[in-house]
Amino acid sequence: MPLNRTHDPQRRGWLASANAVGTDFPLQNLPLGSFKAAGSPQVRVGIAIGESVLDLFAVHSARLLRAEAADAAAVAHEGGLAALMALPAEAMSSLRAGVFDLLCDDTEAGARTQGLTPEVLRDAAQVQMQLPCAIRGYTDFLASEHHTERNGRLKGLAVPVPEAYRSVPVAYHGRASSIVVSGTEVRRPNGQWKAADGRVVFGPADALDFELEMGIFIGQGNPQGLPVKLADAHRHIFGLCLLNDWSSKAVQWWEQMLGPFLGKNFATSISPWIVTQEALEPFRVAAPQRATSHPPVLPYLDVGRHSQAGSWNIDLVACLSTRQMRERNQAAAVVTQTGLRHLCWTPAQMVAHHTSNGCNLETGDLLGTGTISGPHDDSRACMTELTSAGRAPLALSGGESRGWLADGDEVVLRARASAPGHVPIGFGECRGLILPSLTY
Amino acid sequence: MPLNRTHDPQRRGWLASANAVGTDFPLQNLPLGSFKAAGSPQVRVGIAIGESVLDLFAVHSARLLRAEAADAAAVAHEGGLAALMALPAEAMSSLRAGVFDLLCDDTEAGARTQGLTPEVLRDAAQVQMQLPCAIRGYTDFLASEHHTERNGRLKGLAVPVPEAYRSVPVAYHGRASSIVVSGTEVRRPNGQWKAADGRVVFGPADALDFELEMGIFIGQGNPQGLPVKLADAHRHIFGLCLLNDWSSKAVQWWEQMLGPFLGKNFATSISPWIVTQEALEPFRVAAPQRATSHPPVLPYLDVGRHSQAGSWNIDLVACLSTRQMRERNQAAAVVTQTGLRHLCWTPAQMVAHHTSNGCNLETGDLLGTGTISGPHDDSRACMTELTSAGRAPLALSGGESRGWLADGDEVVLRARASAPGHVPIGFGECRGLILPSLTY
Repeated sequence: MPLNRTHDPQRRGWLASANAVGTDFPLQNLPLGSFKAAGSPQVRVGIAIGESVLDLFAVHSARLLRAEAADAAAVAHEGGLAALMALPAEAMSSLRAGVFDLLCDDTEAGARTQGLTPEVLRDAAQVQMQLPCAIRGYTDFLASEHHTERNGRLKGLAVPVPEAYRSVPVAYHGRASSIVVSGTEVRRPNGQWKAADGRVVFGPADALDFELEMGIFIGQGNPQGLPVKLADAHRHIFGLCLLNDWSSKAVQWWEQMLGPFLGKNFATSISPWIVTQEALEPFRVAAPQRATSHPPVLPYLDVGRHSQAGSWNIDLVACLSTRQMRERNQAAAVVTQTGLRHLCWTPAQMVAHHTSNGCNLETGDLLGTGTISGPHDDSRACMTELTSAGRAPLALSGGESRGWLADGDEVVLRARASAPGHVPIGFGECRGLILPSLTY
Repeated sequence: MPLNRTHDPQRRGWLASANAVGTDFPLQNLPLGSFKAAGSPQVRVGIAIGESVLDLFAVHSARLLRAEAADAAAVAHEGGLAALMALPAEAMSSLRAGVFDLLCDDTEAGARTQGLTPEVLRDAAQVQMQLPCAIRGYTDFLASEHHTERNGRLKGLAVPVPEAYRSVPVAYHGRASSIVVSGTEVRRPNGQWKAADGRVVFGPADALDFELEMGIFIGQGNPQGLPVKLADAHRHIFGLCLLNDWSSKAVQWWEQMLGPFLGKNFATSISPWIVTQEALEPFRVAAPQRATSHPPVLPYLDVGRHSQAGSWNIDLVACLSTRQMRERNQAAAVVTQTGLRHLCWTPAQMVAHHTSNGCNLETGDLLGTGTISGPHDDSRACMTELTSAGRAPLALSGGESRGWLADGDEVVLRARASAPGHVPIGFGECRGLILPSLTY
């Protein structure tokens, strides 16, 4: 997908907050989400711009868009964000270009839209973000070798990274029903595990962790039996969000014969805004080089000449704040600084692998990248790595420390794509506060 | 749930095929399914009776039902089988009683219905069965210790059954999108695995297997964060079906770091008729006794005094026919004869465990039991066990043998619940024919 006027760093919005330095949502981003306005049960499709939300339903009703862009807005009005995600990339591209013009400070459409501000623009702080769409299928990958290796060492495995890991983009099916949108409080689950004294116990789950990941939303699906080839995989990727794969490592490590289950399926948080693949176009980077000591990648996963099968330059952080820190008005501590570039498999490879056996992906399906840990200490992207599974607690300000997450802790994930000469774009936040478990 | 007139073995239907000895669908069964009539795109809700299907939409339109039964039929007419499944057990019970009377040979309602035969009854051979409902969540358990132990031994594990297995109803999330209804042909997937010579290859997947399981459909769900206690678990079980968990063991054993993924998610077949929990009531049996050498079950899974947390007396068979056998008009070979009683965890325990951490189940979710292998050689319920992972091929008639499933092989699963003094009821069939893989 070539760069076009919607990527032009010189263009500015008529909304001041869209031009603010450091905003996640400049004119060049235009991520999509679903929201409810105050006092209304209707779920609407919106586009984040600065500190506002453009109401795509109101835009449609006011007939501000033309031609293919208007058609796409009509589809959204009829079927919600999922219907929009199912459209071909060309339709989404038209919608993006149309909305871009509505929000520019130097277009006629922009001037007309500005006059309708109270009708079509809503204060982001006043809307209630929802999950972008119904998510039927959720698959979580394990695409960081750094994460895999550190976990293997913590468990004392003779071979920390299994041989298959070099050839297989390892993944498991997660639970879609318990995915929640950023801001939803997460209750510590009850669970079963083996305590240090050897007893098998059931109670408030120990070793609660966050895992900093990104989520990849599928746009168009594939029919069962027909794989998506790597060269076409980007056509099925609608966009990206942030994802926190909450886990109780105590439960996970005890139950894990056939993969993660109750240790993870109590909740997964995602950020509400989907940054589209087209918005990410200026930030493309090549797929990571494979270590020469690794076996060559099999042809069906060989990025080789497929320029759109690479990754994006996205930096990510995880921030932790405790109840005490919030009471003392202390800023959250940045505990992880990492980047999507550290993964050894790209989103396109994940799509190609997932469908290589004919498994059908569907519109609105979500793929998690797995914990995005990097090679350095500050790029360890979960408590398990940061504290060596609780054995080396993390020192926080005010004399506190954490081996694992405590009740009242809040984790916020953020991300930002950047490239020289381009306006950086952000992903908003993925926020979750831990509540104490209920008595079972 | 006490027995009532719908369980009375003395009652007979006015439809001859409902009274035939050995029918799966006597008057006392009344399983629910979704179907399309020839030439119509509309999905309708039906009830199997003998060799016919009672069209619940037509019954609704003809106003044959009264009171709560009519209300339930209206819900089905409006929202399909999923809407019916979401109703409380009492509503389903009313519908069952109402439909029972319509089909009895000694009721006024029966006489009235018989007069409307061409309108409300369809020939089962002429309708196209569909998946009962949209399945969003699919979880597969591993509830046969016999299966677990034989697999562990085949892999040469020092401890064939891990310690956690005694305490945890082990499960993994499966792929819902690729679940297909009986009769759908199953294409051998392409996949990646490690060949005997040590090379990692990608191609038509080796070691293709069936796994004989049952599926448990969830009726009413639970809100996220609120576990279903064991005493209430039966209230969330709508009914049971047959399930074939097709697997490529070559792919599964190579990829499995975080559980089964591409080795299984290309297809899962289920039988189209859901036998309701109420229909199974006469066939209840106690939960299996735990071996005294095993640790005591944790309280949240202790069936103890919960009489409805047990299992049912259901016998199951798997039949295999090859292309040659069909060409020679030879009957399919019964390769497995087993029973639900061999499982060490009950469906109610599965529901209680799955939700114990607050994970939310939703109407239409499907839980697989895992391969229902028993202690005896003839109760091994997959090729892996039957052939010691291909090393001891199964001899078939006509000089054929199978280490694994071959292209053109067809597997049919059947099941039957029985108890002294009661009319046995069956599950229909779960049928799947293996097609050769496509060139990738």
